[in-house]
Amino acid sequence: MRPVITLLTDFGDRDYYVSAMKGVILGIAPDAQIVDVTHRITPFSIFEGAFVLWQAVRWFPRGTVHVVVVDPGVGSERDAVVVRAGGHYLVGPDNGVLYPAAESLGIEEVRRVEEGELTLPRSGTFDGRDVFAPVAAHIASGVPLERVGPRKEGLIRIELFRYEVGPDSISGHVLHVDRFGNVVLDVPADALPPGWPARLMVELEDGRRLEARLASHYEEGSPGELLVIRGSSGLLELSTRRGSAADVVGLSPGGRVRLSPS
Amino acid sequence: MRPVITLLTDFGDRDYYVSAMKGVILGIAPDAQIVDVTHRITPFSIFEGAFVLWQAVRWFPRGTVHVVVVDPGVGSERDAVVVRAGGHYLVGPDNGVLYPAAESLGIEEVRRVEEGELTLPRSGTFDGRDVFAPVAAHIASGVPLERVGPRKEGLIRIELFRYEVGPDSISGHVLHVDRFGNVVLDVPADALPPGWPARLMVELEDGRRLEARLASHYEEGSPGELLVIRGSSGLLELSTRRGSAADVVGLSPGGRVRLSPS
Amino acid sequence: MRPVITLLTDFGDRDYYVSAMKGVILGIAPDAQIVDVTHRITPFSIFEGAFVLWQAVRWFPRGTVHVVVVDPGVGSERDAVVVRAGGHYLVGPDNGVLYPAAESLGIEEVRRVEEGELTLPRSGTFDGRDVFAPVAAHIASGVPLERVGPRKEGLIRIELFRYEVGPDSISGHVLHVDRFGNVVLDVPADALPPGWPARLMVELEDGRRLEARLASHYEEGSPGELLVIRGSSGLLELSTRRGSAADVVGLSPGGRVRLSPS
Repeated sequence: MRPVITLLTDFGDRDYYVSAMKGVILGIAPDAQIVDVTHRITPFSIFEGAFVLWQAVRWFPRGTVHVVVVDPGVGSERDAVVVRAGGHYLVGPDNGVLYPAAESLGIEEVRRVEEGELTLPRSGTFDGRDVFAPVAAHIASGVPLERVGPRKEGLIRIELFRYEVGPDSISGHVLHVDRFGNVVLDVPADALPPGWPARLMVELEDGRRLEARLASHYEEGSPGELLVIRGSSGLLELSTRRGSAADVVGLSPGGRVRLSPS
Repeated sequence: MRPVITLLTDFGDRDYYVSAMKGVILGIAPDAQIVDVTHRITPFSIFEGAFVLWQAVRWFPRGTVHVVVVDPGVGSERDAVVVRAGGHYLVGPDNGVLYPAAESLGIEEVRRVEEGELTLPRSGTFDGRDVFAPVAAHIASGVPLERVGPRKEGLIRIELFRYEVGPDSISGHVLHVDRFGNVVLDVPADALPPGWPARLMVELEDGRRLEARLASHYEEGSPGELLVIRGSSGLLELSTRRGSAADVVGLSPGGRVRLSPS
Repeated sequence: MRPVITLLTDFGDRDYYVSAMKGVILGIAPDAQIVDVTHRITPFSIFEGAFVLWQAVRWFPRGTVHVVVVDPGVGSERDAVVVRAGGHYLVGPDNGVLYPAAESLGIEEVRRVEEGELTLPRSGTFDGRDVFAPVAAHIASGVPLERVGPRKEGLIRIELFRYEVGPDSISGHVLHVDRFGNVVLDVPADALPPGWPARLMVELEDGRRLEARLASHYEEGSPGELLVIRGSSGLLELSTRRGSAADVVGLSPGGRVRLSPS
């Protein structure tokens, strides 16, 4: 069976960076199935990278090696790590970007990458190519984890989910605005109290209060109507039918939202 | 032989959506060759998706499975379908996006996808991942079409080509403006009367009349000169040498153009 | 072992062009590993394509077939060529775009592509699909180079590196601005005189003189400080920590820079 290696970076799609990683991988693991998650993470945005990774990993088969390079500290003292979690392998800098995905899969083992046999000579500014790609390719080829480097306790943590459920409201934050303008909140759909009505009030940071409707898919709304939807990752989303909810609410990642029955 | 699966969506390249589809596919069909056609169809633009699909399919080998997700009606009552056409398989929503490609390949059989054995539990907002990707992967792995669901008569239609040939002119529409600013018309090059001269008149919606020259490749033009070229899909294109014809004519998809001998 | 074919074009990622090339390749070489270097070369920019190719090729295994289509002269008299260099194969138009990469790998043999057995009927505007993709796929499948066409002497040349080392300064040019705003110069890091101090003066075209610091990675700088870094391709780069050096210096490709001890 061909090993799957995914790549998630903030390298963009105009430069040679991603292709150099793929060239290195294919030199070591010629049969790898390489899948791009995205290379358009906002430069240096560890939080955004962590969220997209958390969404993506669960859909890949066990044994997949996920390489993540959102790495503003490249060349400095931060560790390079490999995490085995839920039968997947996560490879990247220990700066928090791996934590939410690893934690959701179930962390089994963390190794600190030692330079040497499994890595290329380091240029100092491109560990994606010199460290993470070759280590990932070796793991995908069956090299045992103990050859990567010594065990390490714990990972630097990022918390994606900071919502609060009050007696008659839920407060959350914008995690992500997707391509369609859907506003993904850090509130699991399961956190909605079962007794709430289909009519909700959405309070924004600027004091505006907007009527919204709980819906199960986008076409339920009338044009311009604000919907609260259970999104495809199990999180609540603000949406509008064939339009951008982000334009309606004027929120970007980090923005605060309060939901209550209307 | 490794089955080929192509993906054509309006999901963009910043979110986890496309990667989730690929993860699902590789869990079912680990040897699949996955090819991205594009994920940058204008959101909800069934027409644009239909045109790009029509252009792309003919260049893939028979047996290729083409997954198309331009699907504003996701979660509503529209059918999910698999079409066998000219030995290819087209998988997507029955909203017109599949029709021009299917018709050009030669429709052999249409099946309505039934939820169940070949699909994942539906989230309601992401049939690309929950329905189309797994069905495509199963077909690519050799699952026979009758296991997808019952036969269905016909598909929702979109007509890409609405040009008219008059006694001394051809009226057409802009189908697409490509990356270089080439303006692709819905007029097959074969529709040009053989007796027409190399000097043509191009009339635009706003009443402007521009001289143009029939040419077989871009370098034939002098800088700024408007060319009428037989494009790589067999359709007429307005072009200029190393420049954007779209900027010259000021047209976008849907715009009308009339060609006549000059 | 699965042959690797890389693609580097100015076709963008919205049109069907790249997918048509992949469809043609997979019809001929079903086991090929296809890797996109980038399709976002500035339209018609042979120089930019040549630079990105030069950076990328060395990271791929020997035997890789690199297809390059930055080809404003498509359909005109320019030759289509295959170059064997350092055990790699470069396929594209003979307009200079292949030269720097080929020269760096070590040119072994150049063949002019003859239309015929290994090519598709030419549309005149899309040699990427009709000529370069099928020829590359045949080479990747083991077709010997002599079947491509006759030997040819030499290639059209582009010189990427035009820096000058003076008695107490180095003058160079901007080759590229990457996604992060790093300004890549045409000056090899090895050209820096070993005795130079860590404090440098950077003179710009507009007469501004900026203090900068030699550093080995980005995190060494304080916020806003201009760094001179040995980049991942062995060239000097102007950088700033977690920011865009291009915004600081206001330079774009072709711009001139003079470095001296401070």
